[in-house]
Amino acid sequence: MVVVMSADATQADVAEVVELVRSVGAEAFVSRGVSRTIVGLVGDAGALGMLSLRGRRGVSDVVRISVPFKLVSRENHPERSVIEVGGVPIGPGSLTVIAGPCAVETPAQTLAAARMARAAGATLLRGGAFKPRTSPYAFQGLGETGLKILADVRDETGMPVVTEVVDPASVELVASYADMLQVGTRNMQNFALLQAVGSASRPVLLKRGMSSTIEEWLMAAEYIAQRGNLDIVLCERGIRTFEKATRNTLDVSAVPIAQRLSHLPVIVDPSHSGGRRDLVLPLSRAAVAAGADGLIIDVHPDPAIALCDGDQALVGADLAELAGQITGLAALMGRTAATAVQEPIRSRGR
Amino acid sequence: MVVVMSADATQADVAEVVELVRSVGAEAFVSRGVSRTIVGLVGDAGALGMLSLRGRRGVSDVVRISVPFKLVSRENHPERSVIEVGGVPIGPGSLTVIAGPCAVETPAQTLAAARMARAAGATLLRGGAFKPRTSPYAFQGLGETGLKILADVRDETGMPVVTEVVDPASVELVASYADMLQVGTRNMQNFALLQAVGSASRPVLLKRGMSSTIEEWLMAAEYIAQRGNLDIVLCERGIRTFEKATRNTLDVSAVPIAQRLSHLPVIVDPSHSGGRRDLVLPLSRAAVAAGADGLIIDVHPDPAIALCDGDQALVGADLAELAGQITGLAALMGRTAATAVQEPIRSRGR
Amino acid sequence: MVVVMSADATQADVAEVVELVRSVGAEAFVSRGVSRTIVGLVGDAGALGMLSLRGRRGVSDVVRISVPFKLVSRENHPERSVIEVGGVPIGPGSLTVIAGPCAVETPAQTLAAARMARAAGATLLRGGAFKPRTSPYAFQGLGETGLKILADVRDETGMPVVTEVVDPASVELVASYADMLQVGTRNMQNFALLQAVGSASRPVLLKRGMSSTIEEWLMAAEYIAQRGNLDIVLCERGIRTFEKATRNTLDVSAVPIAQRLSHLPVIVDPSHSGGRRDLVLPLSRAAVAAGADGLIIDVHPDPAIALCDGDQALVGADLAELAGQITGLAALMGRTAATAVQEPIRSRGR
Amino acid sequence: MVVVMSADATQADVAEVVELVRSVGAEAFVSRGVSRTIVGLVGDAGALGMLSLRGRRGVSDVVRISVPFKLVSRENHPERSVIEVGGVPIGPGSLTVIAGPCAVETPAQTLAAARMARAAGATLLRGGAFKPRTSPYAFQGLGETGLKILADVRDETGMPVVTEVVDPASVELVASYADMLQVGTRNMQNFALLQAVGSASRPVLLKRGMSSTIEEWLMAAEYIAQRGNLDIVLCERGIRTFEKATRNTLDVSAVPIAQRLSHLPVIVDPSHSGGRRDLVLPLSRAAVAAGADGLIIDVHPDPAIALCDGDQALVGADLAELAGQITGLAALMGRTAATAVQEPIRSRGR
Repeated sequence: MVVVMSADATQADVAEVVELVRSVGAEAFVSRGVSRTIVGLVGDAGALGMLSLRGRRGVSDVVRISVPFKLVSRENHPERSVIEVGGVPIGPGSLTVIAGPCAVETPAQTLAAARMARAAGATLLRGGAFKPRTSPYAFQGLGETGLKILADVRDETGMPVVTEVVDPASVELVASYADMLQVGTRNMQNFALLQAVGSASRPVLLKRGMSSTIEEWLMAAEYIAQRGNLDIVLCERGIRTFEKATRNTLDVSAVPIAQRLSHLPVIVDPSHSGGRRDLVLPLSRAAVAAGADGLIIDVHPDPAIALCDGDQALVGADLAELAGQITGLAALMGRTAATAVQEPIRSRGR
Repeated sequence: MVVVMSADATQADVAEVVELVRSVGAEAFVSRGVSRTIVGLVGDAGALGMLSLRGRRGVSDVVRISVPFKLVSRENHPERSVIEVGGVPIGPGSLTVIAGPCAVETPAQTLAAARMARAAGATLLRGGAFKPRTSPYAFQGLGETGLKILADVRDETGMPVVTEVVDPASVELVASYADMLQVGTRNMQNFALLQAVGSASRPVLLKRGMSSTIEEWLMAAEYIAQRGNLDIVLCERGIRTFEKATRNTLDVSAVPIAQRLSHLPVIVDPSHSGGRRDLVLPLSRAAVAAGADGLIIDVHPDPAIALCDGDQALVGADLAELAGQITGLAALMGRTAATAVQEPIRSRGR
Repeated sequence: MVVVMSADATQADVAEVVELVRSVGAEAFVSRGVSRTIVGLVGDAGALGMLSLRGRRGVSDVVRISVPFKLVSRENHPERSVIEVGGVPIGPGSLTVIAGPCAVETPAQTLAAARMARAAGATLLRGGAFKPRTSPYAFQGLGETGLKILADVRDETGMPVVTEVVDPASVELVASYADMLQVGTRNMQNFALLQAVGSASRPVLLKRGMSSTIEEWLMAAEYIAQRGNLDIVLCERGIRTFEKATRNTLDVSAVPIAQRLSHLPVIVDPSHSGGRRDLVLPLSRAAVAAGADGLIIDVHPDPAIALCDGDQALVGADLAELAGQITGLAALMGRTAATAVQEPIRSRGR
Repeated sequence: MVVVMSADATQADVAEVVELVRSVGAEAFVSRGVSRTIVGLVGDAGALGMLSLRGRRGVSDVVRISVPFKLVSRENHPERSVIEVGGVPIGPGSLTVIAGPCAVETPAQTLAAARMARAAGATLLRGGAFKPRTSPYAFQGLGETGLKILADVRDETGMPVVTEVVDPASVELVASYADMLQVGTRNMQNFALLQAVGSASRPVLLKRGMSSTIEEWLMAAEYIAQRGNLDIVLCERGIRTFEKATRNTLDVSAVPIAQRLSHLPVIVDPSHSGGRRDLVLPLSRAAVAAGADGLIIDVHPDPAIALCDGDQALVGADLAELAGQITGLAALMGRTAATAVQEPIRSRGR
């Protein structure tokens, strides 16, 4: 941290800051210039943070200079991590596609969507049983019935299941059915939920808050990691901006930045970013080209009657096109796409 | 809702939309123009919303035209509501100040802060026992110990207590100590929590999500109302924008707008909006002048050692100034400020 | 400036930065900590800015710590300035209202609007002759014909005239008719225009860019000041955010912040901020309560047929209400509002 | 346009709206529903826009439903355009790279940068002679001297020149040296400048305003087109958001969206979007994968001493890598990249 003293700060003001800093066991280095003095602090950020230096007499500004996360930081863990979900790897080297319906509606719809997903090269099945919806009058998901459907479809197709958890109280229930727990964009700073999934025995897919900075996103991951669960995959899904042509603005730069700051894999959700079917393909290509470790995509056998986000779900022909393009791009990026794989993947006795 | 057909939509495309709309019991009115046809829909928004009309052939856009909330809407409830918190009214006619420390640290600090708050005209005591913090390494609050301190200080000062709840599982516990449950900005779309406080027997202070639209905020209130609890007070607390001179940008326009759309009282948090002590007074005045029904303010007996947000807490001299200015402004706005009251308010056997 | 070295920077990297800094005549102070080294720089910001230190080996970040503007800064000019426009003061002590039609349409409309403005306590007349419009198909203003109408209405009412200038080439023409030159929100970083008004002999009303930070706004003022014109009034007019209930979000915090950073007067435009007639009164009150030195308001004798922004223009009854509320608030803020003045102000031989 | 009447609008209110609409020669279609009436309008948007319907009694909202631009719209011009710049095509089929120094500093620096650009596969040379800078104390460019240097380097390398114009008064001067006129992000709504380049005989590179919507961007292009110049290339260069890890947020979705709405080519500036050298490659790949028709990239022979934006300029090794990756991606996207071409392009008698 650096404390910038105001132009009219006195010697005594500077001395008080230095003393305060030393009182919590940290070091203070004073640099006096022509018009201003700055004090460099080195020590425990937590202890320094509690000093409320910004409110001190003679202090003009306090600037933080080191990253506030540790366990998920790449500084102490230069190798990028590979996270396994029911035997399927996500990380450098591979390009993993997760696909499925936004919401689980019926066994038939879910199975049909899973088969479409497989055809498009997906190796993991997504599907929502608990749906956080802006309106209390919108479809809220099937709950445990939906989890059972997902488990049945996994048995049928061999695709491990990724599904959302919205309440700390139901983490255990969801974990008993699912292979990966998803924390949604609106819950990225639901700290009780982060701590609950941090104690669970399943990998976590952490979506970026639609208005969260990359640093806040990594801090949310740190909450999970701090409880002992380091099997975390980050997912960029678009941020809220002034532009209204898209539902959200895909922040494609977040992919290389998060990969540089953290050792965790980073995937992209092109479906929710744009909120428009016609953008799913170009945004998928952009994400892979930017270096994403995977994609998570909405598919639906009949989008026109989808109970949730039908406007953005891919249909048959799009999927084949997606699979083809992804395979070509993955090769260019030095990754193996499972899209090339023809054999059904069999669940590995989870 | 209005469906805008694309320039190249056929008669059959239009007919299909009309049929689909009628199939869910709604009405469709077709307006044919020179270059485009539009279809006006009237009926149940929920049913219409499920049709995924945007994905239909020939459909260029779907525009929603009525407000999606009902119970909290002023359309069916033109009179503005007054919510009572431990006997203290919040709503038109009065100007209510809630004040206290950001976080409960010790009995002495909380009592001292409460007395400062009283001196500044506050009639409700705020204080955090469960703190949602961006970093897992920051102080997380005292938990139930903090709730007990708040209850003791209420006994001592007669000020009813407002405190935050962060987990559906602890709503009952918090409600057993507090007079009002606060839902924080990061939890505004934590729907499990909204439903839990909606089933509680205490009034709710619903902070606006820092990146939520006014409409989403009112939808969050609707979630609470739908579970049977209509004792909701809305709190504007600044939104996230590109401007970095303030922690957040106080959206003062949200006060008259939310009051026009909803019958619920609207108060303002000038402390968290700006994140700077020197802005608390001007923003408090602006909020009252814009028509706010009250304020919620951070105070701390010694901000320099505060465990949370010390940079923005008001101290002694500021408080007297605040009280004086608020009293003058309240009169101008046709409101009675409790700041004028000298008698200690006694808890009414809650 | 502070240079933060990366965790793996070598001694040689640090030495190179220090040498580079000294090569442009600045000082460098090195603070070595446990995990990182920081280098404090003191010297000419321009020279240091050219070093591209961020790109150097071993450099992790460069943080600027002093304000980049000088002439408009309050640091070297603690007294707040009063700017006179045709004899009417804008600054501390008074509360000045500028009002008039968004666009000059006809002599009759302009005169009627000016009389409404006077009745509402305005002492300066605004009106657009050159209109920057988003669409080339929208009304672009009357040009010099409009300027003549404004000058005639000034002769009739005694109200000095504020009008927009959109092109460096027409600054002289506009200055020959107007008492104050307005630089609009879309031109706040049109540097050729800033330099042209900086060389003109009329005071300037500088609107904040709708997406500009407060610092960029003050830098734009610095451009004008640097050419010799320090008669600048700043005008907050709403910023672009994700919220769509208002055209822009009034950043009321910008008033006290700009007044603290700069000695220039700061006024507010409540009409363009909200873009809704029903918000003009509450936002005007909020602005004055936050400490604004004045207001600029759209009025129109018949908003329903206005050629520009009729949706937000105030009409008769609103104006009387505005005048009454402003007078009361101004007194509370220790300011004299001209709204109380009944005598026509006569132009002072400009 | 659609007029949404409020719930309490009377028959007379509706009739008045209808009459008003018909008075300007447009059609009105009334749809009465259970709780609301809506009126669909078909006619000249300009005439309808002037009616200020939003301010009418009984009117709750007015929703626009057709695009406001015509000449640049793809609706009437389904074929995507190819724009030629000094003989070099930009548009579908090819992938054009424009590169060069942010600012022209010396003949040697510009020539060295041009050679680097050529090596990286660029066929057009960019370089700033007139620089719009946030601070009046920053380097403002060499002016006409810079233009001469660019022309000399074109003669030497055969690369046509793209350079910025910042003032309507200097458009002719710049056009006498340059092959393409660039309108920068801060001038996107400088309508006087748009009209000036619209009358010039050179193609225009129109950068998106950093806070402009895609629609406003296309409206700015419409201003240029309306003056007779349809040789316009759109350039996405990042938008302003809350995220501070990058200078701006590259809105990669804007590429396919602008290409769908307009027939004009769309290129991307990865250098200014991110403002960080380490993002130029991933963002370039993302842009091409999203379908961009080209790139514009900062290069500098010695970024550490660049007078402008050295932090983001590519250097030698990066350029070869860029060229290789672009060639591979272009093939995948069905485009021919000039990066493959080894022969110097000779200026075709401009």
